[in-house]
Amino acid sequence: LSRWAVILAGGVGSRFWPLSTAERPKQLMPLAGDEPLLADAVKRLSPLVLVEHTLVLTNGSLAPAVRSLLPRLPVENVIAEPRAMGTAPALAWAAVEISRRAGRTATMISVHADWAVADAAGFRSTLASAAEAAERHHSLVTVGIVPSRPDPGFGYIQPGEPIDGAREVARFVEKPDRATAERMVSEGFLWNSGIFVWRVGDFLDEVRAHCVELAPALGAAERGDIAEFFDSVTPISVDHGVLERSERVLVIPGDFGWDDVGTWAALRRVRALDSNGNASFGDVHVVQSARNVVHAEGQTVVLYGVNDLVVVSRGGMTLVTTVDRAADLKKMLEELPERVRDLK
Amino acid sequence: LSRWAVILAGGVGSRFWPLSTAERPKQLMPLAGDEPLLADAVKRLSPLVLVEHTLVLTNGSLAPAVRSLLPRLPVENVIAEPRAMGTAPALAWAAVEISRRAGRTATMISVHADWAVADAAGFRSTLASAAEAAERHHSLVTVGIVPSRPDPGFGYIQPGEPIDGAREVARFVEKPDRATAERMVSEGFLWNSGIFVWRVGDFLDEVRAHCVELAPALGAAERGDIAEFFDSVTPISVDHGVLERSERVLVIPGDFGWDDVGTWAALRRVRALDSNGNASFGDVHVVQSARNVVHAEGQTVVLYGVNDLVVVSRGGMTLVTTVDRAADLKKMLEELPERVRDLK
Repeated sequence: LSRWAVILAGGVGSRFWPLSTAERPKQLMPLAGDEPLLADAVKRLSPLVLVEHTLVLTNGSLAPAVRSLLPRLPVENVIAEPRAMGTAPALAWAAVEISRRAGRTATMISVHADWAVADAAGFRSTLASAAEAAERHHSLVTVGIVPSRPDPGFGYIQPGEPIDGAREVARFVEKPDRATAERMVSEGFLWNSGIFVWRVGDFLDEVRAHCVELAPALGAAERGDIAEFFDSVTPISVDHGVLERSERVLVIPGDFGWDDVGTWAALRRVRALDSNGNASFGDVHVVQSARNVVHAEGQTVVLYGVNDLVVVSRGGMTLVTTVDRAADLKKMLEELPERVRDLK
Repeated sequence: LSRWAVILAGGVGSRFWPLSTAERPKQLMPLAGDEPLLADAVKRLSPLVLVEHTLVLTNGSLAPAVRSLLPRLPVENVIAEPRAMGTAPALAWAAVEISRRAGRTATMISVHADWAVADAAGFRSTLASAAEAAERHHSLVTVGIVPSRPDPGFGYIQPGEPIDGAREVARFVEKPDRATAERMVSEGFLWNSGIFVWRVGDFLDEVRAHCVELAPALGAAERGDIAEFFDSVTPISVDHGVLERSERVLVIPGDFGWDDVGTWAALRRVRALDSNGNASFGDVHVVQSARNVVHAEGQTVVLYGVNDLVVVSRGGMTLVTTVDRAADLKKMLEELPERVRDLK
């Protein structure tokens, strides 16, 4: 039984500006705790998956930093996409790579680097169940998170008929409005987390059968011509390109304190809070202030009488915004002069 | 006709923390415009008062910085209080000093260093009228500012009977609540600005007649024993100790864009604003944000989607508070560890 993990760790990370930048992506920073998100992601998989069987998928400019962050990972397990084309090409390439190293029957567990998981043992045990279901039924298994709130920031999965401990997928739902999210949570929908488990051969069969954006290029990937593969595919997510089109998808519910560390606001959920609900990091002093996210590097930050703000100070740059606005920093970055936006 | 000016430039300036500190008081900083407040205060008096006739009253630790800020001021015109005992002892000492240099009939114009004045010519012309009234009637003349808003942060003066272009003072009113301020403004009360004009002999006579807190110590001041003078007086303001007790007080209305640069909030009134009402200084970038006060030294500050905040960043220290709370930084400073509060 050969089980592999693929950790997606690309992305530019403008959502954590000015802390994260193209050269300092959020996955390499200790946003949720004391260790960088990516280091946590690797550690969280052990002992379910050996570090020798863990691939980190990143981009060329980050690969050196990823390798030095993870010295125990074999150097050939850090693989760099020549360009970002969405999750379907990325996972197809990873599946081809695992198939080459371990054969078509190897199981692949796909996760993202920028997550927080409160209960790592529960996480691994759910992944183990998902792997068994995938192996037994030759299915593409997605882990659907039991929602802790009606968050409109996630896609949702409606579970269908039970099959041997798992459920069929009745349908996938795109990011909803708040009212729809509330209804879906009350009706037992699950968050579409992006945790996928399958045998690499089964996944590549489904890509070939359903994903016209990828299928013609798969041969190039299998020949090892990665540049040609990424040049010929059409960008598409694995959800749209494969899972929503396949008849072999199952969902397994997961409830292990999962969260996406997607925006500054998420840090109020994943970091330890003070008695007023502030999430602070660094030399931060909070007086009569509540529910703020404050991150200070090489700076002292003092808050007085303010609520629901995000304050980030590092290397001569300070950002002050609200928790709500922090979900949407891209719009702000477009308004900034290049020399301010592209800080190192 | 000998006319002198006294500029009060003591004070610790915790209200502009972390920009101003005991060693970097606000009077020495360019808070209202491009020049330090104190330099503006000296320049604003010219040509009404010669720089040779301008005394700057400060404290021992600031005197060297004051002297280097004002190289054209004679070095003996910077005089340092041995301790801060309120405005009555300070002005009595200044009056004694001017009397010693120029005689009892010399006129003294007393102002504060931390003001902004939009119309300097109007300011000087009002001071000239006040000086004429003081000289002609042997009165203590205060300039009452025509209010531009019902500000509860000032004391108020109710003008009484007209006397030869000036008005008697019906009464002085302490800082009111907002409703009272609104009523007084609608009824023609004036702000008690702290601009005073009198012959030094007249003022010292009134001190001797009415101010028991100072009178017994005046002899020490006149003998030049300043340490003894400040050791023997009881702290008191010139308003309480002299003006409210004297029968020789007149008020002259002034309307020349005067403001007290007393708190961060004041900078929204005295600095140039952008089209969204933000007062910014330094490398500041404001996106979809209104009515903020932002001061950046050696830092870039970016605001996104926030209103009515005060953000000050300098030398590794960033403060984020609201315009309202900024009036009351003392309470905040009490909550901070000493190493944070007492930054250099």
